[in-house]
Amino acid sequence: MSFEITILGCGSASPTSYRNPSAQIVQIQDRTILVDCGEGTQMQLRKNKIRMQKINHILISHLHGDHYFGLVGLLSTFHLLGRTKELHVFAADSLKEIIYTQLKASKTYLKYPLHFHTLNYSEKELLFSDKKIEVFSFPMRHSIPVCGFLIQEKPHPRKINRKAIDAFEVPTYQINTIKEGANFIAEDGKEIPNSKLTFDPSPAFSYGYCSDTSYYPEICKHIKDCSLVYHEATFGKELAKLAKQTQHSTTDQAALIAKQANVGGLIIGHYSARYTDLQVLLNESKEIFENTILAKDGMKITLPFLPQPKE
Amino acid sequence: MSFEITILGCGSASPTSYRNPSAQIVQIQDRTILVDCGEGTQMQLRKNKIRMQKINHILISHLHGDHYFGLVGLLSTFHLLGRTKELHVFAADSLKEIIYTQLKASKTYLKYPLHFHTLNYSEKELLFSDKKIEVFSFPMRHSIPVCGFLIQEKPHPRKINRKAIDAFEVPTYQINTIKEGANFIAEDGKEIPNSKLTFDPSPAFSYGYCSDTSYYPEICKHIKDCSLVYHEATFGKELAKLAKQTQHSTTDQAALIAKQANVGGLIIGHYSARYTDLQVLLNESKEIFENTILAKDGMKITLPFLPQPKE
Repeated sequence: MSFEITILGCGSASPTSYRNPSAQIVQIQDRTILVDCGEGTQMQLRKNKIRMQKINHILISHLHGDHYFGLVGLLSTFHLLGRTKELHVFAADSLKEIIYTQLKASKTYLKYPLHFHTLNYSEKELLFSDKKIEVFSFPMRHSIPVCGFLIQEKPHPRKINRKAIDAFEVPTYQINTIKEGANFIAEDGKEIPNSKLTFDPSPAFSYGYCSDTSYYPEICKHIKDCSLVYHEATFGKELAKLAKQTQHSTTDQAALIAKQANVGGLIIGHYSARYTDLQVLLNESKEIFENTILAKDGMKITLPFLPQPKE
Repeated sequence: MSFEITILGCGSASPTSYRNPSAQIVQIQDRTILVDCGEGTQMQLRKNKIRMQKINHILISHLHGDHYFGLVGLLSTFHLLGRTKELHVFAADSLKEIIYTQLKASKTYLKYPLHFHTLNYSEKELLFSDKKIEVFSFPMRHSIPVCGFLIQEKPHPRKINRKAIDAFEVPTYQINTIKEGANFIAEDGKEIPNSKLTFDPSPAFSYGYCSDTSYYPEICKHIKDCSLVYHEATFGKELAKLAKQTQHSTTDQAALIAKQANVGGLIIGHYSARYTDLQVLLNESKEIFENTILAKDGMKITLPFLPQPKE
C-alpha cells in the first residue's frame, strides 16, 4: 500500500450514532498523516487498526470542534503510551493554547517534542516535504479561517531497464542519476539516451482535502488534476440557501469543483446529521461529476482511484 | 424507571476499541445526571438512546482527560441543537477556562446559560437538591484533586392506606402532612396515629461514584449503606504496587471499600487497557465482596440492585 486514505469520520458538527466527526488517515509512501481530528478519533484509529504511533504529522483544517476536539485526547494517549519521537501539528495559532491549558490542568508534561506550526490562511503554502512526498495547505472560505490540504507523491524515478543497463555496462554508481533521467556516456564516449536505459515511471498520485468550505472555485487551481479529492457536501441541492448561510457546500457545488479542477475522483462527506439515506446526495453529485463516491466511516480508498461502476 | 445507571464508558486513561473513557448517566426520579464525560460521550449518549437534552447537571470528578475531554463537544452539540435551558457543571475551577478558550476559538456563543460550580476537594458538600433527590461530592485521593459523588433519593413519603383514610374521614387537604408522618386529629378530638393511616414508604435508593482514587477508606463514611457503588478497579491484585504509584485502586481494594461501607452492590470499572478478559478482576473482587458486577459500556443497572446469581 503506497497511497491509501482511511475515513475515520465523515459526519458534520453534530455527530450521529453511525457517523463520527471529521478525521482521516492518509498513508502515503509509508508515512502516516492524520487530517483533522474530531472527537473520538483515537477510538476510531484503534477500531480501524491504524498504528497510531506512526503518525508524525497532524493537519487541522480549522478550529470548529468537530475537526479537532479529539486532538488533546490523542496527544495524551501518545504520551501515556510512552511516545518519545517528535510530532508536528499544523493548525491555527490558538490551538496551542487550547492544548496546553488542558495538559496543564492534568499536570501532564509530554514526554515527546510537540511542534505547533501555524497555518497560512491567505495563500498556498508548503507545509513539509521529504524525498518522496510534499504537503501543502491552501485557503478556503468558511465562517472562521480554514485551510484545505494537498498531499502528493513527488514524481517517481524512472524505472531501470535492466537488460539495457547490462548491455551498455552502466556502472552501479550511475544508476541513481539515470533513474533521475540522465543520459549515459559509455567508455567509448558514445552517449546513450536515457530513453534507451529506462522505462517511464509509475504515476505520482495526489489527494486533496476540502472541508469545510462554501462553494469557492479558487480551490480548483490548488487541486488541479488531483488523483482524488475529498470535498464536503454538508447539504443536498435543496438546501443551497442554508449552505450559503452556514458557509458550507452542497452536493452539486462539490461536484462542480471536482469537474472544474479536472480531478480523477471525488469523495463527498461531512453530511449534515439530517441525512440518513445518502443515495440522493450521491446521485446529485454524480449528475455533474460521475466518478463520485460517498465517504463512510471505516472506508479505505487506495490510489489509483478507478472509475466507479455505474449503479 | 425511577433510578437507573447507564455505563457509557468504563475504560481508563487509554481507551480501547471496546471500552470508552469514563462517563455514566444516572436517571433518578425523572432527572438525568451525567457523571464524568470522557471523549466520545456524546456519541455514546446517542448509541444508548439517552435523551441528551434532559441532562441538566454534569458532574466532573477531576481534570484527567479521560473524565472530561468529551465535555466541550457535548456543550457545543447542546448549542447546535438549539438548547436554551440552563445547564450546571460541577468541576474543578480551571475547567471553565478550558471550555471557554475552545468556544472562543470557534466563535461559539452558547445560546443557553452555562453555570460552572467549583467542587470542594477538602470535605463533603451538598451540590444540589430538590424535593426528590440530593447530590453530594466528597473528596478522594488521586494525583490531582478528585471528588466522588453520592446521588440519592430523599426518603419517600409514607404510602396512604386508602381504606383507613376513608374510614376515619380524613379530609383531602391533610393527606400530604399524613404522607409525611403526621397523626390525624378526628373531629371528635381523638388522635389517630399515623401508623394506622399509612404503610411504610418504598425504600429510598442511593448511588455512589468513586473514580479515580487510590485505596482511601475515608470514602466509606460518605457512601455508607449505599444501594449501589461504582468503584474504580484499574488493576488486579497483582499490580498493587503500580496502583499505589499511579494512585489508583485494585480489585480487592474496591471490594474492601464496598464491604467496609456496607453497600448493597458494587460495580467495578475503569479497567486498565491491559485487561481484555475481565473475569479474573471480577473473581478477585467477589472473594471479598460477593455482590460485585463488572461495568461494561452500554450496560444499564436499575435499582434496587439485587444479589447477583452465583457463577
